[in-house]
Amino acid sequence: MAKFLDSILGRSSTTTAESDYMELDLASFESVSGDSSPASMYVKIATINDLKDTPRVKDEIYNGNIVIVDVSRLKMDKITYERVLKDLRAVAHDINGDIVGLGDQKYVILTPTSVKISRDKIGGGL
Amino acid sequence: MAKFLDSILGRSSTTTAESDYMELDLASFESVSGDSSPASMYVKIATINDLKDTPRVKDEIYNGNIVIVDVSRLKMDKITYERVLKDLRAVAHDINGDIVGLGDQKYVILTPTSVKISRDKIGGGL
Repeated sequence: MAKFLDSILGRSSTTTAESDYMELDLASFESVSGDSSPASMYVKIATINDLKDTPRVKDEIYNGNIVIVDVSRLKMDKITYERVLKDLRAVAHDINGDIVGLGDQKYVILTPTSVKISRDKIGGGL
Repeated sequence: MAKFLDSILGRSSTTTAESDYMELDLASFESVSGDSSPASMYVKIATINDLKDTPRVKDEIYNGNIVIVDVSRLKMDKITYERVLKDLRAVAHDINGDIVGLGDQKYVILTPTSVKISRDKIGGGL
């Protein structure tokens, strides 16, 4: 569409040629979110180190957001770890969301109502 | 009396006693998705080892799903890694989604239209 307008208005298309993707560092490939259009949902990254960190995570789920929780430090305390996971699992169950471990259980993915996590992995050869 | 009724009706009260939260292994806390209600969106886990794995990831994004991509093996080949990320970034940009690295860039989170990734981490103390 922009190109079409350009051709009508006689603008040169070369001005945009070097605009994008000239290099790829982290700052550049993460810059996509710079626009101001409102999001319908957020993915939030959280760390749970002890029980007091769970309410904020639960709030996000209740608000309809997805949370990826770093539980790696929590795992050193087995009892707290199990309490927290039991708690999060109950929330996921209550609101018809979902919960699953990622990687070597370093992360736990928590989803809000009617967002599910596929158990089938994509790609990676065998 | 209840026991008497149970015995008449053939019910046993012990059957429900061990229904919930008796133990917490992965199988139990991941079982939330067992219900049959349809999901409005999926979170998919993918691995990209080379360029041929990217189309399936892009398809998921175009279909409105979130993909968490394991790129750890891809990182050994710097050039392919940058090509793949450039590609994924272009998709995220095109559809007004988002892309961000997770952890030590072991994972890349990719979101579909109007789903954004918060750069503010939740919890973790200090």
